[in-house]
Amino acid sequence: MSRETLNVALAMGPGVASRIFSAGHLESLPAGLRLLNHEPMEEFSSRRSLALLAETDILLTGWNCARVDATVLDAAPRLRHILHAGGTVKNHVDGACWARGVQVSTAAEANAIPVAEYTLAMILLANKRVLQIAGTLHREKAPVEPDGLFPDMGNYGKRVGIIGASKIGRHVIRLLQPFELDIVVADPFLSADEAKVLGVRAVGLEELMETSNVVSLHAPSLPSTLDLVNAGLIARMRTGTTFINTARGELVDQEALLARLERHELFAVLDVTTPWVLPPDSRFYANPNVLLTPHLAGSLGTELERLAATALAEAQRISRGEPLRFPVQDEDLAFTA
Amino acid sequence: MSRETLNVALAMGPGVASRIFSAGHLESLPAGLRLLNHEPMEEFSSRRSLALLAETDILLTGWNCARVDATVLDAAPRLRHILHAGGTVKNHVDGACWARGVQVSTAAEANAIPVAEYTLAMILLANKRVLQIAGTLHREKAPVEPDGLFPDMGNYGKRVGIIGASKIGRHVIRLLQPFELDIVVADPFLSADEAKVLGVRAVGLEELMETSNVVSLHAPSLPSTLDLVNAGLIARMRTGTTFINTARGELVDQEALLARLERHELFAVLDVTTPWVLPPDSRFYANPNVLLTPHLAGSLGTELERLAATALAEAQRISRGEPLRFPVQDEDLAFTA
Repeated sequence: MSRETLNVALAMGPGVASRIFSAGHLESLPAGLRLLNHEPMEEFSSRRSLALLAETDILLTGWNCARVDATVLDAAPRLRHILHAGGTVKNHVDGACWARGVQVSTAAEANAIPVAEYTLAMILLANKRVLQIAGTLHREKAPVEPDGLFPDMGNYGKRVGIIGASKIGRHVIRLLQPFELDIVVADPFLSADEAKVLGVRAVGLEELMETSNVVSLHAPSLPSTLDLVNAGLIARMRTGTTFINTARGELVDQEALLARLERHELFAVLDVTTPWVLPPDSRFYANPNVLLTPHLAGSLGTELERLAATALAEAQRISRGEPLRFPVQDEDLAFTA
Repeated sequence: MSRETLNVALAMGPGVASRIFSAGHLESLPAGLRLLNHEPMEEFSSRRSLALLAETDILLTGWNCARVDATVLDAAPRLRHILHAGGTVKNHVDGACWARGVQVSTAAEANAIPVAEYTLAMILLANKRVLQIAGTLHREKAPVEPDGLFPDMGNYGKRVGIIGASKIGRHVIRLLQPFELDIVVADPFLSADEAKVLGVRAVGLEELMETSNVVSLHAPSLPSTLDLVNAGLIARMRTGTTFINTARGELVDQEALLARLERHELFAVLDVTTPWVLPPDSRFYANPNVLLTPHLAGSLGTELERLAATALAEAQRISRGEPLRFPVQDEDLAFTA
């Protein structure tokens, strides 16, 4: 069956396109799709933009896209899909889009993947104490007996606690499947049955903190999750536990965490902190039990191309008459980052 | 169908049992198995050992086990299986065992798992330049723009080159399946068809070195593999490539590697070196592009329990009349570590 060709238009902030599209991406759109503009729209009010919108069936958006509101929709009578090559659509997709039946898709799922990959690597290194032992070797330049330093080291039979069965949390759970580790998850919205489908056990946050060898935080940043990992919960972690934060600094009582780190009771891998960036005199920098990274777990470098590839794959599905793989509804926005 | 109960005897070097058996392991052997000795035999010539051998159906061995030769076999008329809770059986299983029809099993497969896990973590961190960027942040205590430092960073679309489709190499390939990375393998004994079954592409060593973003060495240490990664091959690696060695230092021309590291052209993760340990004045210690770890990728700490669990699972298979999962033949020994 032959279908009409659909017009795809790009809209995103300055400099975004060159980061998310690799050389070949835009040269050869799949059959049934025609690209209207190689140079993305940065606003929706100029004569050029209005002319493009009049012909647009599919709007492919990126970071810092201008807001698609009722006025823009009036100028885009053929628009049926907004495909976002990024995470949240909160900032540019107005409620009017759903109200008028425009379907919206997000690459938040693709955006979750690198964070889960970073987390997996850090879990495997934490259980084995690799970075601590490497630090000792580089410092002492002498024989080091790894299991003399850390008799309990090893990626066998350890418990990993995942806080939040979010998109990222679920990707971490998926990536942890091949390993002989015991995975528990704390999430107020996760039922025991859902946990079973994921191949994990749902537990309360207190039990998770008390029994895990590694705790990794994957809850969204919402008013209700501020200070989620509070001083009381931090106190529950066993000596030797590693705490990984790739979510947001505000979810954690940093002072309580630092106090236990300075007593050499915990280890921490922190890709986010409050404030971000920490001041130069922050005691986190010099603590030997802390690995700080500058908010790099998310999509960066070549990983940005996955966002564009995800949005383009959605466009291809539309051109084939298939449903979107990553649809997002107006009412989803309240529960996600 | 009820089977006769089989007698299991332990034999290994001093101090090994307490490292490989966790608390519960020996308390409750599966039905059909009876443990003859909690205190392992450390030799096969004492009156006690001879009495044990006379009753032994299954010998469960560990590191530094005394040699099981024709004399020992004469003293063990019921012996049908030697199950090794360790890697190589070269040092303690004499050719006479196979000649008399004793079946031998090894936990080399279980021993390969932690090495593959370490390698996976290091590949994920290398593609993302995580440790280099963390080092910069800890040193400068100021904002760091990760993809400003390393525009090509990311675990998407990168090529990983695996040298050696060994046990460990195959576990690395298996663990790499969930990631959007391009895996190539160089192994003179791997056919294109076998590679296809593994889900990878077989290439020559030159092509692997020239085109991979990460090169990981998993070849056995044999006379024929000495200096396998020679100066000519090291020269072929592209600027920015990460070289991971969890195999043996002797397989690599370390001077050629160090020269390129000191020109900031390569990165390296070295769990083994020649000599092991490096002298205190070795320039590897201070090179910011090098992560050294003290031969910790293999089974250590809780991972040693996996070796015992593997051997005990083999014993259970025997008691049920099932075939061994990890049999090893006399003729295999020439091709493995």
